[in-house]
Amino acid sequence: MGSGCEGNGDGKEQNMAAWLVSVNTLKIQPYHLPRLGPRDVRVRMKAVGICRSDVHFLKTMRCAHFVVKEPMVIGHECAGVIEEVGSEVKSLAIGDRVALETGMGCSRCRYCKGGRYNLCLEMKSFAAPPVHGSLANQLVHPAELCFKLPDNVSLEEGAMCEPLSVGIHACRRAGVGPETNVLIMGAGPIGLITMLAARAFRAAKIVITDVNDYRLSVAKSLGADEIIRVSSNMEDIDEEVIQIQKTMGADIDITVDCVGFSKTMSTALNATRAGGKVCLVGMGQNELTVPLTPAAAREVDIVGVFRYKDTWPLCIEFLRTGKINVKPLITHRYGFTQNEVEEAFEVSARGRDAIKVMFNL
Amino acid sequence: MGSGCEGNGDGKEQNMAAWLVSVNTLKIQPYHLPRLGPRDVRVRMKAVGICRSDVHFLKTMRCAHFVVKEPMVIGHECAGVIEEVGSEVKSLAIGDRVALETGMGCSRCRYCKGGRYNLCLEMKSFAAPPVHGSLANQLVHPAELCFKLPDNVSLEEGAMCEPLSVGIHACRRAGVGPETNVLIMGAGPIGLITMLAARAFRAAKIVITDVNDYRLSVAKSLGADEIIRVSSNMEDIDEEVIQIQKTMGADIDITVDCVGFSKTMSTALNATRAGGKVCLVGMGQNELTVPLTPAAAREVDIVGVFRYKDTWPLCIEFLRTGKINVKPLITHRYGFTQNEVEEAFEVSARGRDAIKVMFNL
Amino acid sequence: MGSGCEGNGDGKEQNMAAWLVSVNTLKIQPYHLPRLGPRDVRVRMKAVGICRSDVHFLKTMRCAHFVVKEPMVIGHECAGVIEEVGSEVKSLAIGDRVALETGMGCSRCRYCKGGRYNLCLEMKSFAAPPVHGSLANQLVHPAELCFKLPDNVSLEEGAMCEPLSVGIHACRRAGVGPETNVLIMGAGPIGLITMLAARAFRAAKIVITDVNDYRLSVAKSLGADEIIRVSSNMEDIDEEVIQIQKTMGADIDITVDCVGFSKTMSTALNATRAGGKVCLVGMGQNELTVPLTPAAAREVDIVGVFRYKDTWPLCIEFLRTGKINVKPLITHRYGFTQNEVEEAFEVSARGRDAIKVMFNL
Amino acid sequence: MGSGCEGNGDGKEQNMAAWLVSVNTLKIQPYHLPRLGPRDVRVRMKAVGICRSDVHFLKTMRCAHFVVKEPMVIGHECAGVIEEVGSEVKSLAIGDRVALETGMGCSRCRYCKGGRYNLCLEMKSFAAPPVHGSLANQLVHPAELCFKLPDNVSLEEGAMCEPLSVGIHACRRAGVGPETNVLIMGAGPIGLITMLAARAFRAAKIVITDVNDYRLSVAKSLGADEIIRVSSNMEDIDEEVIQIQKTMGADIDITVDCVGFSKTMSTALNATRAGGKVCLVGMGQNELTVPLTPAAAREVDIVGVFRYKDTWPLCIEFLRTGKINVKPLITHRYGFTQNEVEEAFEVSARGRDAIKVMFNL
Ligand SMILES: NC(=O)c1ccc[n+]([C@@H]2O[C@H](COP(=O)([O-])OP(=O)(O)OC[C@H]3O[C@@H](n4cnc5c(N)ncnc54)[C@H](O)[C@@H]3O)[C@@H](O)[C@H]2O)c1
Ligand SMILES: NC(=O)c1ccc[n+]([C@@H]2O[C@H](COP(=O)([O-])OP(=O)(O)OC[C@H]3O[C@@H](n4cnc5c(N)ncnc54)[C@H](O)[C@@H]3O)[C@@H](O)[C@H]2O)c1
Ligand SMILES: NC(=O)c1ccc[n+]([C@@H]2O[C@H](COP(=O)([O-])OP(=O)(O)OC[C@H]3O[C@@H](n4cnc5c(N)ncnc54)[C@H](O)[C@@H]3O)[C@@H](O)[C@H]2O)c1
Ligand SMILES: NC(=O)c1ccc[n+]([C@@H]2O[C@H](COP(=O)([O-])OP(=O)(O)OC[C@H]3O[C@@H](n4cnc5c(N)ncnc54)[C@H](O)[C@@H]3O)[C@@H](O)[C@H]2O)c1
Ligand SMILES: [Zn+2]
Ligand SMILES: [Zn+2]
Ligand SMILES: [Zn+2]
Ligand SMILES: [Zn+2]
Repeated sequence: MGSGCEGNGDGKEQNMAAWLVSVNTLKIQPYHLPRLGPRDVRVRMKAVGICRSDVHFLKTMRCAHFVVKEPMVIGHECAGVIEEVGSEVKSLAIGDRVALETGMGCSRCRYCKGGRYNLCLEMKSFAAPPVHGSLANQLVHPAELCFKLPDNVSLEEGAMCEPLSVGIHACRRAGVGPETNVLIMGAGPIGLITMLAARAFRAAKIVITDVNDYRLSVAKSLGADEIIRVSSNMEDIDEEVIQIQKTMGADIDITVDCVGFSKTMSTALNATRAGGKVCLVGMGQNELTVPLTPAAAREVDIVGVFRYKDTWPLCIEFLRTGKINVKPLITHRYGFTQNEVEEAFEVSARGRDAIKVMFNL
Repeated sequence: MGSGCEGNGDGKEQNMAAWLVSVNTLKIQPYHLPRLGPRDVRVRMKAVGICRSDVHFLKTMRCAHFVVKEPMVIGHECAGVIEEVGSEVKSLAIGDRVALETGMGCSRCRYCKGGRYNLCLEMKSFAAPPVHGSLANQLVHPAELCFKLPDNVSLEEGAMCEPLSVGIHACRRAGVGPETNVLIMGAGPIGLITMLAARAFRAAKIVITDVNDYRLSVAKSLGADEIIRVSSNMEDIDEEVIQIQKTMGADIDITVDCVGFSKTMSTALNATRAGGKVCLVGMGQNELTVPLTPAAAREVDIVGVFRYKDTWPLCIEFLRTGKINVKPLITHRYGFTQNEVEEAFEVSARGRDAIKVMFNL
Repeated sequence: MGSGCEGNGDGKEQNMAAWLVSVNTLKIQPYHLPRLGPRDVRVRMKAVGICRSDVHFLKTMRCAHFVVKEPMVIGHECAGVIEEVGSEVKSLAIGDRVALETGMGCSRCRYCKGGRYNLCLEMKSFAAPPVHGSLANQLVHPAELCFKLPDNVSLEEGAMCEPLSVGIHACRRAGVGPETNVLIMGAGPIGLITMLAARAFRAAKIVITDVNDYRLSVAKSLGADEIIRVSSNMEDIDEEVIQIQKTMGADIDITVDCVGFSKTMSTALNATRAGGKVCLVGMGQNELTVPLTPAAAREVDIVGVFRYKDTWPLCIEFLRTGKINVKPLITHRYGFTQNEVEEAFEVSARGRDAIKVMFNL
Repeated sequence: MGSGCEGNGDGKEQNMAAWLVSVNTLKIQPYHLPRLGPRDVRVRMKAVGICRSDVHFLKTMRCAHFVVKEPMVIGHECAGVIEEVGSEVKSLAIGDRVALETGMGCSRCRYCKGGRYNLCLEMKSFAAPPVHGSLANQLVHPAELCFKLPDNVSLEEGAMCEPLSVGIHACRRAGVGPETNVLIMGAGPIGLITMLAARAFRAAKIVITDVNDYRLSVAKSLGADEIIRVSSNMEDIDEEVIQIQKTMGADIDITVDCVGFSKTMSTALNATRAGGKVCLVGMGQNELTVPLTPAAAREVDIVGVFRYKDTWPLCIEFLRTGKINVKPLITHRYGFTQNEVEEAFEVSARGRDAIKVMFNL
């Protein structure tokens, strides 16, 4: 979570990072690490995944309310090996393989004190400008945000803790459990990983939708009970709601919308049973036109999701025990050269058969 | 909750009711009461209020998903005096003054068993076609839905338990309490009564908005901490959000939208603090265009409200102890003649200075 | 749930039941069934299990606050086949195999309306005097309390829904899920089945204790992560707490005490992590001497369990999908003759290797 | 929260504090303040109250699991005026009048991240050895734990935020609100202030018990709906339960035991309605003998209370708006001399007419 460049972490070696310098332009350039604080560690990055928001930043220099005004190191799904520990760090040692939680709150505000630090207004998080991201050879990061990986969890899986955290946070907020039938809209990386999380939370039955057959086939192979090919046409909502409900064959207690369009949220609100919950994870559009009133009149509540909080230990536990297997999601791998970085982002942006694109540094 | 007409309740007297026969046409006509069951009581209606949904039915023969296909007795906010009790009724006696809860669930479904009987799909409720309403001289109603009024609570106040229940249910669902600052959109009967309920739930601070100055002045006189005159123009949202937040002078924890337009919900979603709740009570529009994604990304959740459940005892307790005073809301009173019924509905439909229009039968 | 004897259910056949007539005396005698109401069904009993409370009634004519003053039909864990349906029953047909929920609330009180009907003060339930139990050839029971069994769920498994319901209700009340490590005290039928329920609720890790090696071995074979042999000596508490915590190897989030002695509750309160929950299911003693204050000072909360509510559908779903397998719990089977009834109760009372004793009628 | 003595805060002036040096021995002696950190403030203490735990420490050198091994500055209910601010402190200025929250968690553990920092195992809090207390002329304290007092809230009231926080935390944990009738056991400072908090949380009705008539009379004058003189005799429980329930005249939803004896908890468990909550605040005894099983069988849950979390802003708001008036609780005032300190502790230990004993420094 380096926010500055005041120092050179490690003797001779020049630390390199992928800088977002302008629209559609990423450049591998030197990245001076901040000084190692007493509670920090220096991590040699080994695996960094590309996320939809990274692509969004690359194409528009912005994402949600964040705007990139100065060149910024990109990336935030990562794991690596510890090379140096601060003087007060006791829980970690050189050589430890760790997954990196992306950020941390102020610890003083109502959100931090109240157990919802993801909502902290002073949150400092990878690649949330002006804070730099993590696609770099080395990083300096607070030790408390570095979670040791067990031997049977790979560094790539460690990097996957970040998107998995989104899925887990959604399941927690929506209350997924053995008594809930879950509908998931969208079989992109987030939809798929939310499905894996819902499975680990013991959802009774999971139905997943997408407009893309390949992604649905991945969903099926990853354990979805049922997949449904939908259109992106608003006129089809009523018909699709019927089809979805029939496919579920029981009340839909929870819908997690991992797309975030008027179409998907309208479907979600209409398909979910009275008293159920719709969890909005996807951020496809800003303004949505949705049948909010009929949903409210059935007390279908809407819960939002912003990232995650306190999820890394659970992710690692799920990976260690095999309750979740994220490996099949990694469809493409690249090294950390200028050419490969460019190609990797292109492939990721294209979507379709590219689910998770991963750098091996 | 008479759903049929098989019988004549009370000797010679012809029982009369206000029938909705077609668009804009109400007729006082005979209403044959159903036979008194062992757990029923016969109630002489004394006070019946007019609600927005009654007006909606009158003007369109429909309200929400309910459609009036056969002539239907209108009305559902009511109180009266017991004239006859069924053979198994022990809790009530002839002469008792009672407020009538409007309906009851099946007692068998997941909703009824789970404590959310208002969502019961087999709910039978006043003036929810094909079930008749309560604007009649007499009614036969289940004893368990009749709540005895203490001496210091009038029959008109008893009739006000129905709208008050909506406000209480909203406060419960949203979690209003001494630690919440509450914004209320709309100072109609429902907005005003929700304000009174929020006060009784000890809301820290209450700000209320409306487009109408008179209604805001009523809100102020009823105890709103602050009132704000807003426009019905979508372009003013950003500016009004700032004004509302400034007026609150602190985080808005809960917003209760008692209007239900794109304008009000957009304002609600933007004005409420991260992690707060927006409660949608109003049903102004079906489809709303709202900034759902930014709200979700601040985990501003949306909770719906459908009527109420298990609220009558609390309403009566609030009225008895003076924690809530609904009397100032009753602005107009009418007798139960054809002319007066017509005029009363006209006045109620006009809105503005008419808050609650009440029949004294 | 027949509470009277006004009629003879079924032509010639004399309906027989096991009557508790005095301490230690059960007699198979005629049991006149009540008339079939329009919403009732008549069930041919096929499988009835013996529960600790049945044994308690037999030995003392009382259980908890219930006292047997008149001869009473015993038994309450049961399943059978429908032989007759009331005129209004639509959901069930003759020949359906059903598990019987034991009782039902008044549907009118605060508990029933609030979703906690198990606490209804007017609850009518099998073998809760003066209501008769279910160890009989035939029963008349409300249709809404009879849950159809899928083809792959046997009638014996159907009878096991009753104890399983206790385990599920405990897991729900305690909040068992993928993020909780669970300690269970006692590997009797209830402890074992609570373990199965906790597993189905996806408990991260389950440790179970008992004083009896055989029962622990059953626990192990049924899927406990760890078993611990404890003593019944109060002096061993401190040592055993250490051993239990070490065996768990992580915070104990939830303890379910399925014994209910000072020893087990003291251990539970001391072993559970700050902020955790202790769920008291067992009713071994009335008055317990426990370190309540130190537990309160770590905000270890205690939640009670009284039977269950709305659990049968979930039980059946767990059995159908194989998420729970209760068959290994059934260790002894008997026919329905005077001799066998006596022997079955003796074996059940003896405990040890007898886990669940089942009648096949 | 000074834990060391490395420095002298303020030029020439010798900072003096009340040191607990051995059983029954308090000595006013110099207390070297720690260096002012960038996020600390130096506070001139003005009002410090005496709490039961201070007295307990004085008499036994221990309290709960805390043991005083080295001389320790006593006291933890305090307010003062800021005399110096650290380089990074922006929210406070010299001259600000502040109430001091007593301690703070590690901000990293599951409790701190989960919003329950009061349970943090590394919590550092006033007079929780080895951390020093606050009965001193000056203190160095983290700025984030100092809450500015509005003009209409006195420093003595500021010091009362600490015990008031206990009452508020109890009300929050128990769920006190407009729908709950509350029974409070014990009219000591904590019982009385819990009553004030319950009133502010809008409890429907409050009944309070004590063995002492004077304290009950204070309770009455502070707004208890009903007071009941009870005995300390275990045999009277059944009778007193009946009397208490009759006095409440309605279901007791919540009982807060501010005494913590077998007698009070037994009464609490028996008197509270099925499905209600008993909140254990008092710490009168370690081991309690109580009818835990019958309570569990009515799902009367027990929730513990350890101090408070995030309560100061609410306390101050309640004091500012006059929703709570703590002034009548302050019955005795003393200056900060050796003699007065000794006398103040004696008076406080004696109890009875001494409710809150306050130092004005
Ligand atoms: N709330 C958060 O904290 C958070 C965190 C991470 C990602 N996100 C958001 O989650 C969303 C999903 O991320 P992703 O990486 O999976 O993106 P993605 O674009 O790879 O996946 C979206 C999927 O939705 C499918 N889709 C499109 N229209 C659809 C429709 N009408 N019905 C069903 N499916 C449809 C697409 O085919 C695609 O497979 C993005 O909007 C992203 O910004 C939110
Ligand atoms: N959810 C439920 O169970 C339930 C129950 C009863 C009523 N309702 C609904 O509640 C709503 C309110 O009922 P009512 O009787 O108070 O209706 P009403 O029409 O009398 O009041 C609506 C108020 O909103 C004001 N308003 C209009 N536009 C506004 C804006 N942009 N910003 C702020 N205020 C604005 C109007 O001036 C008016 O005072 C109705 O839609 C009704 O259908 C819902
Ligand atoms: N709360 C409810 O609604 C409910 C419902 C059903 C049963 N129960 C109660 O649950 C309890 C258990 O029922 P069961 O049928 O399993 O009874 P059980 O007697 O067969 O089993 C109790 C088990 O606890 C073990 N045990 C005894 N002392 C122990 C100790 N100190 N530590 C650990 N284990 C110890 C015994 O060896 C035995 O295996 C009974 O008290 C019963 O009344 C409660
Ligand atoms: N849980 C926490 O975080 C926390 C915080 C502060 C104080 N406490 C504890 O709260 C308790 C109360 O504190 P306090 O300062 O009010 O103490 P106190 O000793 O002044 O008050 C106790 C009151 O209980 C009364 N009492 C004694 N026996 C009684 C009985 N059988 N029934 C009813 N009343 C009886 C006494 O007469 C007295 O008025 C103490 O045990 C204290 O340690 C706990
Ligand atoms: Zn923060
Ligand atoms: Zn129902
Ligand atoms: Zn009931
Ligand atoms: Zn901590």
